[in-house]
Amino acid sequence: MSNTPVNDNFALLPDSYLFSAVGAEVARFRDSYPDARVISLGIGDVTRPIVPAVTQAMRRAVDDMASAETFRGYGPEQGYMFLRQAIADGDYAGRGIEIGADEIFISDGAKSDLGNISDIFSRDCRVAVTDPVYPVYVDSNVMAGRAGQLTSQGWNRITYLPCTEATDFIPRLPETPVDLIYLCYPNNPTGTVLSAARLKEFVDYAREHKCIILYDSAYEAFISTPGVPRSIYEIEGAREVAIEFRSFSKTAGFTGLRCGYTVVPRGLTGKCADGSMLSLRDIWLRRQTTKFNGASYIIQRGAEAVYTPEGRSQIQAVIADYMRGARLLKAACVQAGLKTFGGTDAPYLWVKCPQGYDSQAFFRLLLERLCIVSTPGSGFGPAGEGYVRLTAFNTEAATAEAARRIAAIGVL
Amino acid sequence: MSNTPVNDNFALLPDSYLFSAVGAEVARFRDSYPDARVISLGIGDVTRPIVPAVTQAMRRAVDDMASAETFRGYGPEQGYMFLRQAIADGDYAGRGIEIGADEIFISDGAKSDLGNISDIFSRDCRVAVTDPVYPVYVDSNVMAGRAGQLTSQGWNRITYLPCTEATDFIPRLPETPVDLIYLCYPNNPTGTVLSAARLKEFVDYAREHKCIILYDSAYEAFISTPGVPRSIYEIEGAREVAIEFRSFSKTAGFTGLRCGYTVVPRGLTGKCADGSMLSLRDIWLRRQTTKFNGASYIIQRGAEAVYTPEGRSQIQAVIADYMRGARLLKAACVQAGLKTFGGTDAPYLWVKCPQGYDSQAFFRLLLERLCIVSTPGSGFGPAGEGYVRLTAFNTEAATAEAARRIAAIGVL
Repeated sequence: MSNTPVNDNFALLPDSYLFSAVGAEVARFRDSYPDARVISLGIGDVTRPIVPAVTQAMRRAVDDMASAETFRGYGPEQGYMFLRQAIADGDYAGRGIEIGADEIFISDGAKSDLGNISDIFSRDCRVAVTDPVYPVYVDSNVMAGRAGQLTSQGWNRITYLPCTEATDFIPRLPETPVDLIYLCYPNNPTGTVLSAARLKEFVDYAREHKCIILYDSAYEAFISTPGVPRSIYEIEGAREVAIEFRSFSKTAGFTGLRCGYTVVPRGLTGKCADGSMLSLRDIWLRRQTTKFNGASYIIQRGAEAVYTPEGRSQIQAVIADYMRGARLLKAACVQAGLKTFGGTDAPYLWVKCPQGYDSQAFFRLLLERLCIVSTPGSGFGPAGEGYVRLTAFNTEAATAEAARRIAAIGVL
Repeated sequence: MSNTPVNDNFALLPDSYLFSAVGAEVARFRDSYPDARVISLGIGDVTRPIVPAVTQAMRRAVDDMASAETFRGYGPEQGYMFLRQAIADGDYAGRGIEIGADEIFISDGAKSDLGNISDIFSRDCRVAVTDPVYPVYVDSNVMAGRAGQLTSQGWNRITYLPCTEATDFIPRLPETPVDLIYLCYPNNPTGTVLSAARLKEFVDYAREHKCIILYDSAYEAFISTPGVPRSIYEIEGAREVAIEFRSFSKTAGFTGLRCGYTVVPRGLTGKCADGSMLSLRDIWLRRQTTKFNGASYIIQRGAEAVYTPEGRSQIQAVIADYMRGARLLKAACVQAGLKTFGGTDAPYLWVKCPQGYDSQAFFRLLLERLCIVSTPGSGFGPAGEGYVRLTAFNTEAATAEAARRIAAIGVL
């Protein structure tokens, strides 16, 4: 019973994180029907094992740690140069994008960076997010005191950019001034993408209005349609306005290994109250050197192996497997008469609820009648109502079985 | 050149983190004298390889990740139960302390937790730190806007509790009201400890004044003197007022592997502006589930092995090695006529500068005359002036050689 003042904003957050709430409901169902063969197409977690190129690299790294000659203590907070250079070469230079190794920050995952980036901005920043949206962007801003109050229309200080069927799930540009715009493409949860032309509109907007885009491209590895941008830095002028977040979680199955990275270009600046400018790269480096001690050496060696020829081809095979599952699911939805978006350049399908069902009701129907776990779209924001998200991350057999069950939904 | 408002507090921070500045000076020395056999007793990083029990466990964990049957995706944000239970049993129950696995939060390291814990407290919290102090406590509070302005006496909104020779390096209780008290024992940088009686005074103070103690016991494994508390929870009533931070970095050489944990007892509360109470455990859990995705599975398996009988005895042997080095260094300092504190229950020695030298001058003398890297005490706060810190973390041979050089310092 201390009198120590806490961060009041925590009291504003609704009780439970979407995925925990869904998890609890699924757990109750499993308890009630212990023999049901439940298939999870819910939380976006991978199921395929780590590829051999990566596990071999990690075994060698464990050996390094076991011997006095090759042991490594504290690594650089920003990440080892061997990995930063591999990223600069493999993900950027190789695609004609100019990003230096000194602009890349390795971390234990994109979720950490997307949450922690909040530290470097003012509490007064006006934030825009797409709707529906990955809840971390919103919740981390609630904690920072930037969201205002929760209303039936969402948080009253957050600008929502609705992504609806009427606009092909493409967000409109903000109509009121904002300082930070979160974009995630390929999108979680809708599975849709932005063309280079559409993304350029956002970059141009940010340049004109002098705001910053926080670009989450955690799913870029799933893009197969030619011309769809994998990095915001493919767009002219993006270096002046964008921070990019990347993850090995979905690209290479690292959800349990933990590694991601963030690109903060030199020259990107923000404004102090007195009008002076600070380099965002420099203050992010300062934040990381003070509150972070680098990602694990073993995991960084594993991530480095993602960029070897063997690593690349092994990972591409895994992604092709997941995307085969996405196509199966999409075909099954079509066969069942369900309008379905995404699933072509992303491992997520955004399925419109049939007439008479809202997100929660359709989630329950899929669970209770087909023993399939989905994620209710309403959990991702007001415009997510009327949809559920399905993921293609389950095993080949489970995804195929789920597709068979969905194809038969017409009987309902 | 965006107009996005940044966190102005970053502009308050002096240019460079202590250890980076020292590193730059040492780099210049090495460049000028490439043949000098420089021995680093500076930054507190370990040098001994990871013990076999831990590397074997990590190899098995890599194997788990390589196979579809045993692959693990996202782990619990709070950490795997296998590790939390091992900690609850090994570090607490085994010592008669009641800490539940649900009160333990696994992370990628104590530095992250010590920095991020700031998120759950109000910006208005009044902070007390010992002086000298591990810079992360101060710098993370500067970033949060709790430190005020930097003056020649330190930050004007931080309460410093001086630890000087006159009081045996024991901090006095705060004389003005505070909300958060950071304590680190065994202490970094002084290497001194608090007796149970002295620590109880702080716990009693916090209970009476309803404030919170943030207790960093990253170096507890180095305690050998009977009766010196390893955990603040050995003290009656501490569960009501203390959060404890622990690390595998020094205990088991995990500086490059990255794992630590934080204990937030159920029942610990803080106050909202409207007078309502929030459970600190619950809001820390909420913070972690939103901005963190758990520590690496492979590293958690390694940490679990620290608690096996083989792990324990292997690690104790490494710590005994380091502490043998600390005794050698201490004896050498005594022989050189240098007043030296710590080094008995901690891997750090706090060496008083000889007459006529301040921290920086003595640091340079050790570097330029003995080719020994120390850390200037002034970098740890105003009361650190007049001391340098030496660490016992170098190899046996290097530490012994450094001791020989120091023993001969009398000729200066």
